[in-house]
Parts: sequence; structure tokens; C-alpha cells
Amino acid sequence: MPASNFPPVPFQEPVRREDAVLERIAAIVGRHTIPSGEVHIGDDAAVLAPIVGETLISTDVAVLGVHLDTSLFPLEDLGFKAVASAVSDLAAMGGRPRAAVIAVSSPPGTDLEELHRGIADAAAMTHCPIVGGDLTRSRDVSVAVTVIGETPGKGSVLRADARPGDTIFVTGPLGRSAAGLRRRREGAPLDDPLVVAHRRPWPRLAEGLAARHAGVNAMMDLSDGLGLDFNRLADASRVGFVLTELPVADGATEAEAIGGGEDYELIMTTADPDRLLDTFHRRGLSTPIAIGLVVREVGVRTLKGAPLERAGWQHEL
Amino acid sequence: MPASNFPPVPFQEPVRREDAVLERIAAIVGRHTIPSGEVHIGDDAAVLAPIVGETLISTDVAVLGVHLDTSLFPLEDLGFKAVASAVSDLAAMGGRPRAAVIAVSSPPGTDLEELHRGIADAAAMTHCPIVGGDLTRSRDVSVAVTVIGETPGKGSVLRADARPGDTIFVTGPLGRSAAGLRRRREGAPLDDPLVVAHRRPWPRLAEGLAARHAGVNAMMDLSDGLGLDFNRLADASRVGFVLTELPVADGATEAEAIGGGEDYELIMTTADPDRLLDTFHRRGLSTPIAIGLVVREVGVRTLKGAPLERAGWQHEL
Repeated sequence: MPASNFPPVPFQEPVRREDAVLERIAAIVGRHTIPSGEVHIGDDAAVLAPIVGETLISTDVAVLGVHLDTSLFPLEDLGFKAVASAVSDLAAMGGRPRAAVIAVSSPPGTDLEELHRGIADAAAMTHCPIVGGDLTRSRDVSVAVTVIGETPGKGSVLRADARPGDTIFVTGPLGRSAAGLRRRREGAPLDDPLVVAHRRPWPRLAEGLAARHAGVNAMMDLSDGLGLDFNRLADASRVGFVLTELPVADGATEAEAIGGGEDYELIMTTADPDRLLDTFHRRGLSTPIAIGLVVREVGVRTLKGAPLERAGWQHEL
Repeated sequence: MPASNFPPVPFQEPVRREDAVLERIAAIVGRHTIPSGEVHIGDDAAVLAPIVGETLISTDVAVLGVHLDTSLFPLEDLGFKAVASAVSDLAAMGGRPRAAVIAVSSPPGTDLEELHRGIADAAAMTHCPIVGGDLTRSRDVSVAVTVIGETPGKGSVLRADARPGDTIFVTGPLGRSAAGLRRRREGAPLDDPLVVAHRRPWPRLAEGLAARHAGVNAMMDLSDGLGLDFNRLADASRVGFVLTELPVADGATEAEAIGGGEDYELIMTTADPDRLLDTFHRRGLSTPIAIGLVVREVGVRTLKGAPLERAGWQHEL
């Protein structure tokens, strides 16, 4: 959006700064091949060829100093994490990415090229082309990513359809991201495996597609932590749960596995565990881990016999 | 995106603030009827029924203090303008809105309900339902709006297809928004008609659809001002132009009409002016105003015989 009229409009002097920066950024994020009939960066809106099946859309914003501490991490990680977080929302529906647009606000002097290199890396790794964006100035550096996805074949998997008796699975052990942040604070290098798990979260797109094809009833990604997110799924489905296992990642603590967030593992509930395990196996994916059962009693929300608190991240707004 | 791991994760205390705020906001922006088979606010991603024809996507961010001065205007205007600006990008392609998602960053204490009332007003007026969003904290108040649109029937109208010999039209006189801001600074009330034009810009959706059906070659919206925007269209089309008329809105100055921005009138070029005029007339739309001709010579960019400078708004980045 133009800052057209405030502060006073500079009628006299032609300013080309924004257009020039946009050109450099387009060169960074626009390296993908544009399919015939599509228009990506450069017009009022991007034009995409028809989308297959249901259309998915999700938006996520990451703010420097809130979502990333630049005394510990390079700026490009903010861009990477913002895109990965948004793409993970598509994985959580069983969808696949089609395109992303990026709105960046930043103070003068921000290294926008570094920021967009992280954005471009995540877009390339998740096959989610950046098709448009907006730049504006502000005091904070913030990155708002919106992703469009599609669900070919059967419909998207919601978080509201878990059923009593379903077995609950996660796609992998939990707490790696929180452990990586802790290790970085303790001085671990940027390429420490757990630190990388924190810096470069990997949306479980293949796992989400496999889960949808295996007919899971409900699914979501663990972005804010198991304690908070799984209670949300149970709220949406009006069910309770009895978790008997907590798969803690090597190097992480139990508290990090429950409340750490940003793992982006998927949690799934299914009436047909064998079909889920078989589908993952046939696709060469890591074996999902059964952690408990969905129960009818909405008030029953336990992990190893104790209540599972809504621990995890919420903003103070 | 969760601020999951920075600052330190509050494992101990269940925090429900964000979820509680989200519920109140969902009640403000979620008043529309959700079509069968769609899922709007509340899951990882929103699910839309299949989109007709080409899919359009555009993102726009508005920042308090950059795009709106709260000493002059209520906070809800920031939300309204952000949505209207994004929807205008769909109008400029000849498309119609399908859905919007909103990512809001704000410091604690911001009146998020007022902000979202402005968002909801613009969404209702443009028939663009808000289907999802994200909230995070930051020092600035910023609103990133992403809109999804569709172009049923013939393809989207680009800014790159203007042809020498085309007649150039605008959908209305220019400078109203800049004049409204000036009048507000001079003490005009919030309901002064020009001040309203600044506070509540109106995306020309009906005009954009009519122009596409009338077969215009190129189109864009005037968001940053005629001087800047029309030079961009000429750049994209590799053409020049000779403008013979400057339609200045009542109460606006010539400078405001050229460089003011935020008018969101559409500029169109067509090889068939009679068809354009006839189509607008049959649809009961205001008669578009012919302002000049597209020429082959890329270096010729004149208004009433003088060079048309790239005057208008660009951010310093």
C-alpha cells in the first residue's frame, strides 16, 4: 500500500528508491520458472493458473525481536522461519503449496536482500514460488507471509473432526526447536543440528499429504507447542484425550517437548492406525509415533495421567 | 506464527490472552455467511471452494504513523484503507474478490477491536470475506492484507499490454484523496466529502470488471499517483504516452491530481473507445474520461506538452 499522503507528498522530486529495491528483491525471490499463463511479481496482482480442488490460504507474521533475536541469529532466519511457518499450515491441512506473497515492513537501512535470501531459500525448499509482495517502512522489521495451497483429490483435513477412539500420532519427536534455541543461547554454533532445527524448520508437506491419503480424521501442526496446540484441536473437535507417550527429541527436555513450539511436527488422529503406518511406510517417510487416544469426555486432557496444561506461546495483545 | 521460543517460553503459566483476543476479533470480522464446504477462521488454513478461472493474489501492508496519522484519523481507518488498497489491486486486473486474510502486529494496549471494525467494514463493502488471520506483538501497529480474487470468463488485464494508438481513460477525476488529507490538516471534519474520500477509498470493482469485458488492453489502479503509476504502466508495456487532459477533482489541485495517490481510480488503455464507453453506460457506471493516447516512442511521456514526472509516493527503504 502506498504511503501516499502522509507525510506530505513529495511532488517535486522523482523518487525511485522503492522501485529500485523492488527490482533487486525480485531478482532474489523470482528465480523460479513462471508457468505459461501466469504472472508473478510486477503487476497489481499475481495471476495463477486454475487451482486444483479446494484452495487453502493462511497468513503468518514474524517480527524481529519477537520471533528472532538478531544477537543470536542472522536476519535471513526471520525470512526463512516466516515462510516455513506459513507453509506448515498447508501441510497441516494435507495440502500442497501453490504460491506465496510477502509483505515486509522495515526501518531504513535494513538488509532487505539478506532477509529475502532466507525467504527465497524456504520458498525453494518447499516448492512454493514467491509471486508478489509489498514493501513499506516501519520501526520494526516484520515479515507477513501468505501462502496459497491446493488439496487435490480428497478434501482438506481439519482439526475439528477428531473422533473418540481415534489413535493419536505425531510425525516425530518433539522439543528440537526449543532445545536448539537453548543451545544457541549457551553458545552452540549456528550449524549445530538442534540449532539448525530451530533456524530452519521443515514443514512436513509429504507427511501431511500421506496422512490425508491415509484418511486421518483430524490434523494440525505443532507450532505453539503440544500443550497449547493439542488442547486447541480437542476444543475444536469437542473431545478429550489420554496421552500415554511423550516422544522427546534427543537433546531436548520434557518441558521443551510439551511447551516449546516451532517443531512443526504434525499431530494426527485416525480410526485406522494400520493404514496410516502402511501409507507412511510405502512413501518412505519416518514412522509416525502413536502417543495416545481420543476420548469422548471433553474434560479429560491428560498426559501420563496428569492434566496436559495449555503450555506454549501466546502473545500478550 | 508463534513467538514460540523467544523470549523464554513460559512453561509454567497457561496464557489464554491471544486465544481470547482472537475470539473477540473473529466475532467482528467473521459475520459473513460461510458457504457450504468452506472453512474460514479457526483452522491452520482457511479452505475455499474451487475458484473460477484464474486466481489473483495481492498483498498490501499499512503501518500506523506511515500510512495513517492518528492525530488526524481514527485507528479503524488504517484497517479500512489496508483492505481497500488490496482489493483495488483485484479491480485493476478486472477480477473480483473471493477472500482476504489479515496479519496484524501491534503493541500491547492497541484497540484491536476498533482496528478490526475498519477491516470488517471494508470487507463487507467489497464483498471480500475475511477468512483468516494472525496476530502478533510489535512496536508498530501494522496491518498486512492479502486478497484472493478470481477472473471468471476472459483473462486478467495486465499493465504490460498497452499498445500504440490505444486511447487512455481514467474512471474518474483525480486528487480527491490528497485534497481530503490537506483539508483534514486544515481542520475539516471527518465527514467532509473529500476527507471521506481519503479515509474510505472505494475500489473500482464494477469498473474493472466492465473494462475487462469491454476488452481493454491494459489497466492498473492509481494508488501511488498518476505520475508514478502511469509511467510504470508505460515501462511495463514498453510504450510512451501523450496525455492531453488532466481531470482534476473538485477541490483538488493539479499537483494533487498528478502526485497525490490513493485515489484508486483505474487507468485503462483500449483500442476500442466506443465499446468501453458503451459498456460503462449500459452498466450504469460513470462515464470514463479520455485523457490521451499511447504512442510507440518509449521516451515520449508528456502531459499537456510537458514531461510527466514520476511524482508520487515511494518508501525510503
